[in-house]
Order: sequence, then C-alpha cells, then structure tokens
Amino acid sequence: MDDIKKLRELNLKETKKKIKDSVKQDTLIIQTINHIQDLTKVINILIKDLREWYSYHKPEFSKNCPDHEIFVNEIIENKDKQIKDGMGADLSKEDLEPIKNLTKQIIELYKFKIKQEDYLEKIMTALCPNMTTITGSIIGAKLIQHAGSLKRLIFLPSSTVQLLGAEEALFRHIKTGAKCPKYGVLHGHPFVSKAKRKDAGRVARILASKISIAARVDYAKGNFVGDQLMKQIEEKIK
Amino acid sequence: MDDIKKLRELNLKETKKKIKDSVKQDTLIIQTINHIQDLTKVINILIKDLREWYSYHKPEFSKNCPDHEIFVNEIIENKDKQIKDGMGADLSKEDLEPIKNLTKQIIELYKFKIKQEDYLEKIMTALCPNMTTITGSIIGAKLIQHAGSLKRLIFLPSSTVQLLGAEEALFRHIKTGAKCPKYGVLHGHPFVSKAKRKDAGRVARILASKISIAARVDYAKGNFVGDQLMKQIEEKIK
Repeated sequence: MDDIKKLRELNLKETKKKIKDSVKQDTLIIQTINHIQDLTKVINILIKDLREWYSYHKPEFSKNCPDHEIFVNEIIENKDKQIKDGMGADLSKEDLEPIKNLTKQIIELYKFKIKQEDYLEKIMTALCPNMTTITGSIIGAKLIQHAGSLKRLIFLPSSTVQLLGAEEALFRHIKTGAKCPKYGVLHGHPFVSKAKRKDAGRVARILASKISIAARVDYAKGNFVGDQLMKQIEEKIK
Repeated sequence: MDDIKKLRELNLKETKKKIKDSVKQDTLIIQTINHIQDLTKVINILIKDLREWYSYHKPEFSKNCPDHEIFVNEIIENKDKQIKDGMGADLSKEDLEPIKNLTKQIIELYKFKIKQEDYLEKIMTALCPNMTTITGSIIGAKLIQHAGSLKRLIFLPSSTVQLLGAEEALFRHIKTGAKCPKYGVLHGHPFVSKAKRKDAGRVARILASKISIAARVDYAKGNFVGDQLMKQIEEKIK
C-alpha cells in the first residue's frame, strides 16, 4: 500500500514538473502577441467612444482629423479650440471633463501598448534573432502564433509560411475556386505592402523562403545570419 | 441674386443652430452609459488576457480567486507569493514585468470607470432626480438608452418600460411562443434580483409603474417625489 502511495506522489511530482516545463519562451511570445492584438482592439473601442462623444462638441474637428493618434493628441494640446463658430453644442466644463479624461486614458493605453511591444521585441530577439531581423517582432510573433510554436513553424514548408494567417481565403479558394491568396501575415511586411501589386506575391514567396531558413537557424541556436539573409532578399526583390 | 445668397446664409445659420440645440442632456446620458458599457467590455478583454498569461506562472492562484477585482488587487499586493511549489513556470523578473504592468493598467481602468460612473450619477441626478432615486444612475440611464430619450421614455406604457432591454426575448415569445420575459434592464435592480423567483415579475411590474411616474415628473421638472414613490414601492413589495 505504501508503495502505491509513493508511486502516486512521484507521478504527481513528475506531472507537475512536465506542466512547469511546458511553458517555453514561445508560449510567452504567443501570449504577448495575443495581448497586443487585444490592446489594439481595446484602444479602437475607446477611440470610437471618444470620437462619437466628442463630435457632439466639435463635429468639424473630428471629421478633419482621420488619424486616431493625431486626433487624440490634438485634443490634449487644445488645438481643437481653433475651431470657432462650429455647429457643435457648447458643453459645460463639467460635461467636457469626462471626455478629456477619456482622451488621457487612451493616451495612457497607447503608451502601455508601446511598452508591451518593447517586451515582445526583447523576447523575440532573444529567441529568434534571425527571423526577427527579417520580419520584425510583430510579424514574427504572428507567424509563431499561427503555427502554434517555433518548433511547428520550422517544420512547415515555406509555401505554408507564405500563407499563414490567410487560412480563410485559402479554404475559400479550395472550396469555391475563388482567387488563391498570395500572403497572410506577411501582408503587413513593408517589402510586401510597398511592392507593386503584381509583384507582391513574388515578394511574399521570397520572404517566406528566407524566413523558413532563419527560423530553422534560430531553433537550432545557430550563428547570426539575419543580415546575410536580408541582403539576399533585397537582391532578389530588385 | 443677392437675396438668394442671403437666404442661403440664413438657412445655413438656422440649420447649424438646430444641430447645436439637438444635443440635450439625455444625449450625453446615452453617450455616457454606452461608454461605461464599453469600459466593462474593455476591462473584461484585458482581464481575460491577464488570467491566461498569469496562469502560466501560478495556475493555482488564478483558479482559487474567481472574482476579477480581488484577483487583480491580490497580485499587486503580492499575495500570490504565498503559493509555493506550484506547477506554474518560474518566470524571470523580465517576463513577470509586463504581467505586472498589465495588472496596474487594469486597476487604472477600474478607477477610471468609477470616475465615469460618478459623472453619470451627476448628470442623471440633475436631469431626472426622481427616477434616479428609484433606479440608481446606471439602470436609469439604460432605460433612457433603450427608449432613445427621456421624452420617448415618458410616452411608453409602463408595461413596455418593464420589458425594455428584453426585446430579443419578447420577440422570441411572440414568434415562437417561448416564455414571455418578465423584465429587461430592471433585472439588475436589487429589488428584482433579490426577490424570490416567483415574485420577480411582480416586483418588476411595480417598479416599472413607479418609474414611469417618476420619469414623467422629471420631464415636467416637477417637485421631488422620489422618496414617496420609493416608500410606495417598498410597501407594495412586502
């Protein structure tokens, strides 16, 4: 009986250890990129509130300033005061206060998001310096997020890497014969977004193939070859 | 030609004035309650992130503490340190920092929400002191939100007031013969939520009828009768 008890305890200990060890650096990366995406969502919800609320006061100002960050900052800097004779309501100081407070809160959240992105940059550079050189921390993290882990990412063919994040469009293509997507997460990469439309697919393919190599070097803790890979990409794209 | 120009200018001026005057106190109330509901949503998104992230570190602690606000505060007060030998991963100081920062950010948002609720309380008490005495500021604001304005609210029969916020269930009842809802927004009122299940509908009906009266007195800028109405409700409920 005693033996069984002992065995059970050992087993429990072993399992706890396994659970403990299952949290790896890429678990944290996926968690962080999820969180940063949620922050974007949260900021957008509050910005929508602010714009609606604010437009009772100065509808012209909100309309003339489509960029969210500039909009928020100009309210804080009182640049909105320049609009005279608008068709907005004259709100009392008490009614303006919660709007100003919301503006400040949004600015805080912007700063907070930058802080969390810095952390992501740090852990991405530590775990996959080569891939991060090519993709930047956000896109690199999204690739790991879609693959499930760095290990899974390195086992994917680069044609799959090219389409990570475009799963929906891909299945639509297979099912209904709609156009085949040319890139998913990589759409956000400056090389792809700045390429001419007819080149974008080719650029994404070149990028994906080098990202696959970089990720494998990273997983094997190989030397830093990010620079060389970047140079090769730039030459091929030309 | 000059006359037409003048006419046009006058017309524009008149329209601008009308737009300006269309923003009333209840517009601000609806805006504020929308915003407070969005804040709840935002906080829930971030809490979900925090719990997930944190549970890599101390899964036992997150599980033992179902209340969000207590959970957040206990992390800040380092009460989670009491758990030894857990099955969570030992995160480095750098990896814990973004989690702590997120915790602080959530606490900030809780405080901010209270501030915005205080503002709502202030404008609700100013515009509809009688109704707010019965409903409290949040439920009162939700009733105005669902009705569209205070004016529309006072023209609704009290049976409709009773069901405001339960539109979906009501139409399901009409269409499919499912159970008829007994209350909507009023579900959140302490009298209803504390009532026995079989009494809840009756309580909601009594509340709704007095709320209708209170709202009409408020709209007509009548005397303060909130106390009396409250006493009547309490007697009828007994």
